[in-house]
Amino acid sequence: VERSVFEGLDRVDPLAPFRDEFDIPDDGPIYLDGNSLGRPPRSAVAAVEAGLREWAIDLVGGWRRWVHLPESVGDRIGELLGARSGQVAVCDSTTVNLYKLASGALAARPGRGVIVGSAGDFPTDRYVLQGIAAASGHRLQLVGSSPSEGVDLDDLCRHINDDTALVCLSHVDYRSGARLDLTEVTEAVHRVGAMVLWDLCHSAGAVPVALDDSGADLAVGCTYKYLNAGPGAPGFLYVRTELQRDVAHPIWGWFGQSDQFAMGREYQRTEGAAGYLTGTPGVLALMAVDAAAGVTARAGIELLWAKSRELTDLLVRLITERLVPLGARLASPADPARRGAHIAVAHRQAWPWCASLVERGQVVGDFRPPDVLRLGPAPLYTRFVDLFDAVEKMAAVLSDGLPDGDFEARVT
Amino acid sequence: VERSVFEGLDRVDPLAPFRDEFDIPDDGPIYLDGNSLGRPPRSAVAAVEAGLREWAIDLVGGWRRWVHLPESVGDRIGELLGARSGQVAVCDSTTVNLYKLASGALAARPGRGVIVGSAGDFPTDRYVLQGIAAASGHRLQLVGSSPSEGVDLDDLCRHINDDTALVCLSHVDYRSGARLDLTEVTEAVHRVGAMVLWDLCHSAGAVPVALDDSGADLAVGCTYKYLNAGPGAPGFLYVRTELQRDVAHPIWGWFGQSDQFAMGREYQRTEGAAGYLTGTPGVLALMAVDAAAGVTARAGIELLWAKSRELTDLLVRLITERLVPLGARLASPADPARRGAHIAVAHRQAWPWCASLVERGQVVGDFRPPDVLRLGPAPLYTRFVDLFDAVEKMAAVLSDGLPDGDFEARVT
Repeated sequence: VERSVFEGLDRVDPLAPFRDEFDIPDDGPIYLDGNSLGRPPRSAVAAVEAGLREWAIDLVGGWRRWVHLPESVGDRIGELLGARSGQVAVCDSTTVNLYKLASGALAARPGRGVIVGSAGDFPTDRYVLQGIAAASGHRLQLVGSSPSEGVDLDDLCRHINDDTALVCLSHVDYRSGARLDLTEVTEAVHRVGAMVLWDLCHSAGAVPVALDDSGADLAVGCTYKYLNAGPGAPGFLYVRTELQRDVAHPIWGWFGQSDQFAMGREYQRTEGAAGYLTGTPGVLALMAVDAAAGVTARAGIELLWAKSRELTDLLVRLITERLVPLGARLASPADPARRGAHIAVAHRQAWPWCASLVERGQVVGDFRPPDVLRLGPAPLYTRFVDLFDAVEKMAAVLSDGLPDGDFEARVT
Repeated sequence: VERSVFEGLDRVDPLAPFRDEFDIPDDGPIYLDGNSLGRPPRSAVAAVEAGLREWAIDLVGGWRRWVHLPESVGDRIGELLGARSGQVAVCDSTTVNLYKLASGALAARPGRGVIVGSAGDFPTDRYVLQGIAAASGHRLQLVGSSPSEGVDLDDLCRHINDDTALVCLSHVDYRSGARLDLTEVTEAVHRVGAMVLWDLCHSAGAVPVALDDSGADLAVGCTYKYLNAGPGAPGFLYVRTELQRDVAHPIWGWFGQSDQFAMGREYQRTEGAAGYLTGTPGVLALMAVDAAAGVTARAGIELLWAKSRELTDLLVRLITERLVPLGARLASPADPARRGAHIAVAHRQAWPWCASLVERGQVVGDFRPPDVLRLGPAPLYTRFVDLFDAVEKMAAVLSDGLPDGDFEARVT
């Protein structure tokens, strides 16, 4: 493919104007790691600055408004995820939310002894389930997952039965970008009477997630990837309304308490997603989530997903044409219908390749052990031409030969 | 006492220059609620603004530095609390940290069936313990607490024995400001072989807390009161080094994992306070905590505590002279040696009194059910003359007679 094709796509891209809503330094590298940490929307920066002024002026009185942010920002995220009001709260981290909902789901399926996860899932998902199983006496069953194709659905179906309490899976695999069908898997899990808890970290803000329509029970995710709310921005959780009575909450805190400021003697979990809150929420961070999610909402998930598919399809084509002849290999599903919004390329020297591109100030992707370079072209601010230029630079580094010596492991 | 006495104290106050380090609007009310939400230090505002620029420029590469913030900022908070390095982490909320450490302590005291708390403790502390007891089958014993004098030590000693696993108490009572002796209570708890978990929310940054020297096992607290890190800033936790092997962590997340970025199969809790981390931490919030705690560190806890005692002693004297004749009553210990850094005044109409002072833009304290107005003169930025002026205005509102009608419950 010629560079002019990519330039032409940028000219007709209806989302092109959104790039101007982000704070993007002129001389920076091509950034293909929005799936790890999104760029700052100017509106999110402005929201934090406004929050700092509110703190100075309103002082403790600001809480009259701030106290509702976990729910109101939750509803805003819920709209992006196909969830009606009262089911999503923005709070804590993905890890803590996973812990809360996985624990709560077990309480809703008493007498069932097995938790099912994926052996290839993101570490925190696997560790949280390990910890819960160790404490509760449940058995943790990890189903197989291929480095390039994600969870093996046949293996999953073989491993769930009437002893399964909970199945916890990522909608889009953090490494390969392999995407599961929310509805199909949810139905399979429901057929054996278990609950499903989805990790939406690599979907939220880029890949459509029709939570209500899919029948999903529970979900968690983060806001710092495609939702661009900043490093370590809070997580979110979703509990389907009909399940809120039965899904318990292990951490009984004052923000989950009914009639919170009456400070009553006995804990009584409040209604709605707010019942799954814990302690005092970070106000400035919630303001950033609200503003950042607003940019995604204005662009619209359908347009974002359409552009994302164009971007990843073209990226796969460039990888095949330019990088495979240099020893690289696609480490994402070959079938576009099974992909999310990021692409993985495997190479024996993926680590020095990734580090060298960063050190030269050319392309930022990220390394995932043992041999994967991950590329996430966030559709809100990535230009088509960025893909062409990035792959040229990636090819040049491989053609030059990779330098010897040590490279610091990248943290993302 | 005359106003000139207070003016004179301000002239010789060695901490007076610190007021200029805060963003204080010219026309605001007298703020006596720094024990609920501290004012913004200019350095914390600048740190957040710098963090926003780091996000834009360094993008995901910023994590090479950010990843260490929970521990490095933890060590900085630890210095203020008399804790050597490696025992304090800044993370999650006070509520989540209470849950983590209380759960972990029970694992370190197997075979003991009782958790002891205080019936007068802050709601989240009581609720978290209720939730843990409900899940684990422990019995929760709440010891008596007087609205003005705090925990009854005799009652506490009667209720702890060789079946006590954990005692969880606040160092300074959130309502009355009654202060316990950390060392004395810790020794009593240790005599029966139980562990003690201290809530330091109303001490950290104003009242000396010699954690290591006191023999305390575990502690948690917040950074948004006297530490001035902003609304909903993260909490902290302390686990004494010698206990870190035995105190388990219920939430196994990737930030608590040894060799985190190797993303290994099995969770292995890392060493030090970092082992009690959970998920990805909020970076901008940690930067605010670091900068804000730096102001407290430069002022020095000893000078802050000396000024705090002067402030509260004078406030009690003003209350006695001016407000008691108008129907108010001191709801804090009469003995200065038993007080923390805030003072409670009880009045039958405390709610409309508090609300009226806020609505007139005169004095911000806060209401605590059923009948208490809380006044926290944070020593970093409160002037002595503020106390005189505040009590005059409080007296004037009482003398005018309180308006009828509804007042919105204040949230703090």
